[in-house]
Amino acid sequence: MSDGQATGALHATLPTRYYTDPDHYNRELEAFWFRSWLCVGAADEVAEPRSFKVVEVGDQSILLTRDAEGRLQAFHNTCRHRGSVLCEQASGSFPSDQIICPYHGWSYGLDGALQRTPFEIPCDAFDASQYSLYGVSAIEWAGHMFINLDTDGPQDADEALGPMTERLRNWHLDQTRVGHRMIRDVKCNWKVFWENATECYHCPGIHPELCRVVPYYGQTKLGPGDGSPRLAEGAVTWSLDGQTTLPWFPDLTEEQQKAGHTYGMMLPNFIVVGHVDYARVIYMLPLGPESIRLTIHWLFRDETLAHDDFDIDKAIEFAAIVVDQDAKACELNQKGLHCRRHEAGVVMPQESSVHEFIHQWIHDGLQ
Amino acid sequence: MSDGQATGALHATLPTRYYTDPDHYNRELEAFWFRSWLCVGAADEVAEPRSFKVVEVGDQSILLTRDAEGRLQAFHNTCRHRGSVLCEQASGSFPSDQIICPYHGWSYGLDGALQRTPFEIPCDAFDASQYSLYGVSAIEWAGHMFINLDTDGPQDADEALGPMTERLRNWHLDQTRVGHRMIRDVKCNWKVFWENATECYHCPGIHPELCRVVPYYGQTKLGPGDGSPRLAEGAVTWSLDGQTTLPWFPDLTEEQQKAGHTYGMMLPNFIVVGHVDYARVIYMLPLGPESIRLTIHWLFRDETLAHDDFDIDKAIEFAAIVVDQDAKACELNQKGLHCRRHEAGVVMPQESSVHEFIHQWIHDGLQ
Amino acid sequence: MSDGQATGALHATLPTRYYTDPDHYNRELEAFWFRSWLCVGAADEVAEPRSFKVVEVGDQSILLTRDAEGRLQAFHNTCRHRGSVLCEQASGSFPSDQIICPYHGWSYGLDGALQRTPFEIPCDAFDASQYSLYGVSAIEWAGHMFINLDTDGPQDADEALGPMTERLRNWHLDQTRVGHRMIRDVKCNWKVFWENATECYHCPGIHPELCRVVPYYGQTKLGPGDGSPRLAEGAVTWSLDGQTTLPWFPDLTEEQQKAGHTYGMMLPNFIVVGHVDYARVIYMLPLGPESIRLTIHWLFRDETLAHDDFDIDKAIEFAAIVVDQDAKACELNQKGLHCRRHEAGVVMPQESSVHEFIHQWIHDGLQ
Repeated sequence: MSDGQATGALHATLPTRYYTDPDHYNRELEAFWFRSWLCVGAADEVAEPRSFKVVEVGDQSILLTRDAEGRLQAFHNTCRHRGSVLCEQASGSFPSDQIICPYHGWSYGLDGALQRTPFEIPCDAFDASQYSLYGVSAIEWAGHMFINLDTDGPQDADEALGPMTERLRNWHLDQTRVGHRMIRDVKCNWKVFWENATECYHCPGIHPELCRVVPYYGQTKLGPGDGSPRLAEGAVTWSLDGQTTLPWFPDLTEEQQKAGHTYGMMLPNFIVVGHVDYARVIYMLPLGPESIRLTIHWLFRDETLAHDDFDIDKAIEFAAIVVDQDAKACELNQKGLHCRRHEAGVVMPQESSVHEFIHQWIHDGLQ
Repeated sequence: MSDGQATGALHATLPTRYYTDPDHYNRELEAFWFRSWLCVGAADEVAEPRSFKVVEVGDQSILLTRDAEGRLQAFHNTCRHRGSVLCEQASGSFPSDQIICPYHGWSYGLDGALQRTPFEIPCDAFDASQYSLYGVSAIEWAGHMFINLDTDGPQDADEALGPMTERLRNWHLDQTRVGHRMIRDVKCNWKVFWENATECYHCPGIHPELCRVVPYYGQTKLGPGDGSPRLAEGAVTWSLDGQTTLPWFPDLTEEQQKAGHTYGMMLPNFIVVGHVDYARVIYMLPLGPESIRLTIHWLFRDETLAHDDFDIDKAIEFAAIVVDQDAKACELNQKGLHCRRHEAGVVMPQESSVHEFIHQWIHDGLQ
Repeated sequence: MSDGQATGALHATLPTRYYTDPDHYNRELEAFWFRSWLCVGAADEVAEPRSFKVVEVGDQSILLTRDAEGRLQAFHNTCRHRGSVLCEQASGSFPSDQIICPYHGWSYGLDGALQRTPFEIPCDAFDASQYSLYGVSAIEWAGHMFINLDTDGPQDADEALGPMTERLRNWHLDQTRVGHRMIRDVKCNWKVFWENATECYHCPGIHPELCRVVPYYGQTKLGPGDGSPRLAEGAVTWSLDGQTTLPWFPDLTEEQQKAGHTYGMMLPNFIVVGHVDYARVIYMLPLGPESIRLTIHWLFRDETLAHDDFDIDKAIEFAAIVVDQDAKACELNQKGLHCRRHEAGVVMPQESSVHEFIHQWIHDGLQ
């Protein structure tokens, strides 16, 4: 992310057709979505051995489950025989330690190995070890599940997920749970979401409540690198009045407490933000060239959920307002991009992070 | 238009795929719809300075408004910054003499010039004069608004809109108003509409009411060039009984009175017809390869609208019947064009205007 | 069809994209659907001279009717003039021995010859014999109508429809009638239907009722060539208990009686099966790359329909269960085929008929 210092430099936006063209969308699925680590849910959605969840990444159906040792496993939701889907339900629990195809009954272990093809006929040419389920890399961090359809590369969370794991370490998010989930479909290209998320030039006009709690945003600069943006005088967290009566995360540094929010981001689908009294995760999956699905999780410690002052409506209201404002802004942006004369827009100095963070990354990934 | 004289010549229709293929449709948007003058509404839909209307031409969203001097202005409905849509509403009135982008607050004058970017950071490279709204040519005639997305070429109504302005001059249509509006979506390619509109070979079977008032149409010939087709004996206008008790347009020639109807047409989207007691406008916009939207305006002078005998239901019933019959015929034609063996049809001698007026124009435009 | 003898050979399935790609689907429409004999309904749906039915084959609308001599005729449902559809209704009866285009009134005989263009203008260039309706080959067999959009090739039922006419001869199906019709849309590619129909490796898991009546299917082998599969001990027909109190088809051989079912198939759209007391037809038409429509007809002799024990619910329940099970299996298979890593599956020895019967035929047809 940019250091938030306006450089005075102007850059063109990405070509407009990158945001609307179905063929380019498919190219980006291949270049980014099928090669990156992606959050696909909270770990407790697949809590026990044999429990499973099916998620859609672009047009790919992915099956998440846990083996007998509790390790998260992920596979393409497709049988190696003639390609039947393995799980029709969005979630559930397998009756045994096997994944059994509903069509011809091929059975796989929870590690994806083909165990049995029914009514076997001797056939020297058939080597069961060549017919394991199509594997997908899977790791857990911060109480969430991450997958990577490209199975090469690092499988360790710190290495795979990058600097955000260090930045949020003091929140011990693996000890929180999802207190509230919000799902919102937004009619925009996935890059419009990111451009909006990485600049605050729009904040004064779009987010009055946010600018009251974080006045720095009202100056249309963005950049947590230097400890800024600070909260308003007297505010301690992201709530409508900047206050909280809930307990604080105990291990935050003084700097983290003063900052009021600490961001972690991982392109193309994950944002996490830690406040003193709660944390929040946003993950996004593309539904098409001009449509995304946002899932927002509000995370709390057990102690907080059990606290006398805990009120879920109050806890979520501030961020829910901001998410709604951003969603509407993204849809405005997407609509206007159909203008045939608008071959590209301009990134203003206040939005340098859009150019540096997003556009360079896109540019490099499409090479 | 043809002189209505049957020539005995046969011609092939346009290739059938021109009517169904999405790629060819996009080619025609570029060749015709984005280069021609198009009617997009009645002038009183954008009556006052600051009032606005948004119209869709193909996939292009166009913003119409009036400046402080009352001049009609038209722009692509897209901000020059990062491409947000400027107006979300279909119509309304700006609160000031500015068009302000709802995303980052860039503000433009009603002439489209960029006036202010909020929270400016000194940046030598930024030249505001390079960021005016994408302009669209706009003129008014006959109480209607016409735009041209290709901003080169004539901007004077008589020159831009061609001979129909002279032919309808005696109706002084700028002194009429819309007494009734009818909107009808028809499932056909836009060229099917024009082919139907320029031949009357279909009239005996499809339009019995019309053929009673204009018997010439029942002979399956079309061609107003020589003053024909005449009304039926005793008829004076296009109504179910050919009669009217409403006042006549005062400046019509004897020939125009006798003709009963005087047509003006402008490809690809506009038809106007003047009768002795009312006038009618049809404009058409494409919604897709196989879908159009027709808007029909019945135009009357104030004196007529205030007349004791004025009855809007009676005034519109005749033309509404004819429009409905034509819409159904166009949908029949479109449906049958999917036959894979029908590479092209045949234009009969009675339909020479289809060949001369439409097909030659299409052929030339696609060069 | 395979002889049901497991060969121990493995083959790859067709490339996965053959089942999902719209361009490949269009290629298969041309290669198979527009060149093969297809069942399109029961003969009594177009019972009398002048009665008609319109059917859709892919994106082609076909008009079936009978001439004055009662001969079945089929045409593309498109006028030769400017391509209007001829019949808007799905079925009905013409008021005369003419097919009259609703647009300009061109009239054709029930043999498709152009008889009259209204308001003729002398035009030497016009040769009516060149404007007959686009003909489609049509024949009748077993009380059903078959068409072929490719009008070359054999027109005799025995020659056109192949060996199934001989195999089912003893049922005299032209003397049966449709006692029940079931229409079911299934979300799968048409080849998935055939692959499912030609292997019984899925039977033990999917069809418990069927495996009770035909235990051979429970052994996951398929192949009627040698008189197998036999019915269960004591069973005589395909019903839930294997019994029937209805009269038997009188001319079956002892072998046909013992077999309990005799299949006929004709790629790409027709299956017929004769039991001792009823027969069943399934014909399938493609609705898109991933969608088909099945029509199932239960056929009975008049004597059977009039029998005291005849109960239509009981007569159809068994086959309706099996059809439903197969439809669900086909949808499972289609869903899983979107996995980007599944370039092809594997055909097991028990499914050799899938490879031999279907894949070779597809492979040859696409040359």
